[in-house]
Amino acid sequence: MGKSILITGGVRSGKSREAERMTLALGQPAIYIATAEAHDDEMADRIARHQARRGPEWHTIGAPLDLAGALRDSDGTAPRLVDCLTLWLTNLMLSGRDWEAETRRLTALLPELRAPVVFVTNEVGAGIVPENKLARDFRDAAGLVNQQIAAACDELWFCVAGHPMKVK
Amino acid sequence: MGKSILITGGVRSGKSREAERMTLALGQPAIYIATAEAHDDEMADRIARHQARRGPEWHTIGAPLDLAGALRDSDGTAPRLVDCLTLWLTNLMLSGRDWEAETRRLTALLPELRAPVVFVTNEVGAGIVPENKLARDFRDAAGLVNQQIAAACDELWFCVAGHPMKVK
Amino acid sequence: MGKSILITGGVRSGKSREAERMTLALGQPAIYIATAEAHDDEMADRIARHQARRGPEWHTIGAPLDLAGALRDSDGTAPRLVDCLTLWLTNLMLSGRDWEAETRRLTALLPELRAPVVFVTNEVGAGIVPENKLARDFRDAAGLVNQQIAAACDELWFCVAGHPMKVK
Repeated sequence: MGKSILITGGVRSGKSREAERMTLALGQPAIYIATAEAHDDEMADRIARHQARRGPEWHTIGAPLDLAGALRDSDGTAPRLVDCLTLWLTNLMLSGRDWEAETRRLTALLPELRAPVVFVTNEVGAGIVPENKLARDFRDAAGLVNQQIAAACDELWFCVAGHPMKVK
Repeated sequence: MGKSILITGGVRSGKSREAERMTLALGQPAIYIATAEAHDDEMADRIARHQARRGPEWHTIGAPLDLAGALRDSDGTAPRLVDCLTLWLTNLMLSGRDWEAETRRLTALLPELRAPVVFVTNEVGAGIVPENKLARDFRDAAGLVNQQIAAACDELWFCVAGHPMKVK
Repeated sequence: MGKSILITGGVRSGKSREAERMTLALGQPAIYIATAEAHDDEMADRIARHQARRGPEWHTIGAPLDLAGALRDSDGTAPRLVDCLTLWLTNLMLSGRDWEAETRRLTALLPELRAPVVFVTNEVGAGIVPENKLARDFRDAAGLVNQQIAAACDELWFCVAGHPMKVK
């Protein structure tokens, strides 16, 4: 079974850069599984900045919804980086999919994968309770996804100001 | 003096589950001191989900306001779990009580307790500054309560994605 | 080169108190470099509370914008405490300065300083994505400033409920 790692942290805590470093340390070239879709200019900018930082040692795949399928289909020897679970959850919710079932599909798949996978996710639950119910439901769901993927992964890291702390 | 533990973390970080595990490890049966009141359907749902997860090894007491009194009255040999301090603070503020005095009562009581107690609380201060003053005042108060209870407790744990990190 | 330390955490996590303790442990008297400006009564209250807690072992300097200049001009043998980077960034943005250039000036200066410096900053990126773009841009900028100063500092600490965890 390939090693599995979850990296979490607040926005701009250095999660993606750390995840790229860890993935390339597991093998090169590596596969970048992007869950982001460029719905607006701000998101398109953010995707372009992330891509510009990555070099030719990366092959990129888009997987906004069927993440388990993308991990199964890309399984071989190259390590995969999934960036990020929070956007994947957003995409599932916006398209009316069953995110709990998709999360179970993902955790069930992990022990069967041969190549390593590094997941990036976000901490969204350490602020004040949001006033709108959709935001409250989203942060509940994001926390549950993080817990379930973390339980299924071999390692869990928490990024603070660009530096990873090992949690498990 | 009974051991005292504070467990903090963002929403859905696995705090309550970890606190239940730690409390039962200190002795069974255990006493669950609930600070929640079902003001609306969303909160009633959340309470019901939490109760459904707990088994018959728990005896439940409600203490929305007089937490020090509930801890003193239930003191014996059974460990207590207080879930959670953030809702207790909310209840004190909504009913116009002096939360600073109540927090001092609580920290003064801790060294006198014979049976162990595990407190659950929330991190609410790691997001952007809220626009409304009430929310800013609340997160200031919540942070101060957390600091004071943490200082009075033997152990402090911080939960990330379902996994506890020992802080002290 | 003087030792450099960055202390981060959520609001009311005990960052300032811990930073004061660490600074005074590096030498006394110490220099307090305040980035806060009293724009409104709430902020004036907060500044007054912080000042009241500090004793006569502190000499205070105000540096709302030119932080690199204040560090260079105060460099000698006394340790400095900068409280805090998040307000400094806010001041730079509100006055239309180039915060990225000012951050580079600061990280370039650090290796040249003889006396130690302790920086306090805030975690603002672990809540739900804010609805307004200015708040999103601010938390992105705050995260980047934290990463860059953390990379340039010898030590990085993360405060939880009044207790510091060493990150690097």
